[in-house]
Amino acid sequence: MAEKIKGRTEIAELGEFGLIDTLTAPFKSSRRSTIKGVGDDAAVIEGSRDTALLFSTDMMVEGIDFDLTYFPPKHLGYKAVTKGISDIAAMNATPEQITLSLAISSKISVEWLRDFYSGVEFACREAEVDLVGGDTSASVTGLIINISAIGRAKKSNVVYRSGAKLNDLICITGNLGAAYMGLQLLEREKRVLAGIDSLQPQFEGYEYLLERYLKPRARYDVVEALAREKITPTAMIDLSDGLASDVMQICKSSACGARIYLERIPIAKQTSALAEEMHIDPVVAALNGGEDYQLLFTVPLEARERIAAVGCIDIIGHITAPETGAYLVTPDGSDIKLKAQGFKE
Amino acid sequence: MAEKIKGRTEIAELGEFGLIDTLTAPFKSSRRSTIKGVGDDAAVIEGSRDTALLFSTDMMVEGIDFDLTYFPPKHLGYKAVTKGISDIAAMNATPEQITLSLAISSKISVEWLRDFYSGVEFACREAEVDLVGGDTSASVTGLIINISAIGRAKKSNVVYRSGAKLNDLICITGNLGAAYMGLQLLEREKRVLAGIDSLQPQFEGYEYLLERYLKPRARYDVVEALAREKITPTAMIDLSDGLASDVMQICKSSACGARIYLERIPIAKQTSALAEEMHIDPVVAALNGGEDYQLLFTVPLEARERIAAVGCIDIIGHITAPETGAYLVTPDGSDIKLKAQGFKE
Repeated sequence: MAEKIKGRTEIAELGEFGLIDTLTAPFKSSRRSTIKGVGDDAAVIEGSRDTALLFSTDMMVEGIDFDLTYFPPKHLGYKAVTKGISDIAAMNATPEQITLSLAISSKISVEWLRDFYSGVEFACREAEVDLVGGDTSASVTGLIINISAIGRAKKSNVVYRSGAKLNDLICITGNLGAAYMGLQLLEREKRVLAGIDSLQPQFEGYEYLLERYLKPRARYDVVEALAREKITPTAMIDLSDGLASDVMQICKSSACGARIYLERIPIAKQTSALAEEMHIDPVVAALNGGEDYQLLFTVPLEARERIAAVGCIDIIGHITAPETGAYLVTPDGSDIKLKAQGFKE
Repeated sequence: MAEKIKGRTEIAELGEFGLIDTLTAPFKSSRRSTIKGVGDDAAVIEGSRDTALLFSTDMMVEGIDFDLTYFPPKHLGYKAVTKGISDIAAMNATPEQITLSLAISSKISVEWLRDFYSGVEFACREAEVDLVGGDTSASVTGLIINISAIGRAKKSNVVYRSGAKLNDLICITGNLGAAYMGLQLLEREKRVLAGIDSLQPQFEGYEYLLERYLKPRARYDVVEALAREKITPTAMIDLSDGLASDVMQICKSSACGARIYLERIPIAKQTSALAEEMHIDPVVAALNGGEDYQLLFTVPLEARERIAAVGCIDIIGHITAPETGAYLVTPDGSDIKLKAQGFKE
């Protein structure tokens, strides 16, 4: 292990969240058009009199966020768009435009890029989002992808992480942990097949998990469905870091506590089946796996029936007073304090 | 040299411009709010009834776009902002918000990042631009920086690359080739000092060149000055790839030719002096060096006097018919056809 250099602090000592907070603290806003800057899924910017613009950015790094040995280029293009526009949906807004920057290493061919862009194009068409700009650079090493997104919403419909109120219901779309188990499956097959060209990877029965990891869809459809039922959530975030971390983000921003009921967390059959096979607790996959790209949001108690009318939304808990903290309640009634990574009694 | 794999086309065979054109050709716009997509310095998006939003993105890659062995972190942060907002100025608009994504390798310390962000903060304060969001990721290799920017302009003031008309005057701000010579100086000192810790780099007399390379300022001040004189250019681009390439971009977009007069290209004394010392033709530095971040624009003939009133702007040529092509006219009257990289008779 390298000796610590005097006056040198490793980034790991602060962690990503602490680091960004520290580094952006000295920045002051000088534009009246900035309604909300750093600190939510997307920034909020003055549009016209009654519309706001949402603005966000996301970077994906080869070897950290994806592995090209098993990520098909078309899926990677699709997923990059999902990651970019999911932040806009998480503000209860409609994504409209994206830009795409790429740093491309010499191992990437034109044919590979064509497939990648066909995935980008597919995702854009599906979400009715326009690719309006980009930048490409060479890379001396791996592939880097950056997507920035712009969206639009009525000002009164923009939802922040900070609006959750006591007794609000905590809702999620879809099911959790599937993308994480999809990744585990791909990593397992990569290890099994290392150096053995003649074998085929074993994915039968787990296709849903692969799709959730390789080709997740952003839940802009939920934004539309909530609008149809005239529901404006009080707080919202997209599930990118795992349920535990994202619930805690809402608690921190809204200055509140939360109780999540373990048995109400929706987990798909394939997720449970593979988790059992691989000796992983499926609840841990749901709590800490991340990359679900579902929406986590809170609504007032009186919206319960309208939430049921939307369909595909589960109420998994409720907001509590700030001093109570964020807890997972198990079926036997014991409370487990939520932690951003892993959880302990 | 690696054997060519069947069905594999190297990216170098197409080049960056050809590649982007090819890859984005299948994309169709599906949002009415998109006024202008790919193909200019920034995309143009519907703002309010009479304002447009500009949206652009830029990526900088370690080992390709910058060398950390001589790039001070504070300057790098400043330059990243310049690169991002220069694209907005090039649309005759005012930059207002940026996002910053970083992929950070383990060699980067918290102290380094703090200096980098202080440069970002300085540039933002100077330009009255708000940093409103970002993303940080680990990087297995080098540092990657992506800046996306949003700006604003009256719709009637937005200037595209495509509006140059026959006989328009071709104008540039500042002087050219200085950033390129600054880079040459840094590279020379790096070679000289390789492995020799006791020597100091020799920069005396060339401080201006270093500043132009390490800490270039985007010309949003020119956008304001043009507005004061009620000048709306007919076409505009920022000088990032070198005068030759950028003139040709305007000619291509505007379907016109151009004549640039060599003796009218402003070159700073330090640029000429170092070029002579290093046996580089200063005109080549100006034509092909790039990274000047000055503005190149065209105005109608009748704006000549108002251009003089702005100050710091040089008229270097005029727009010709498309069939005549883009030429550099030397003092002895001979015409040299402009090429994107290098030029030959």
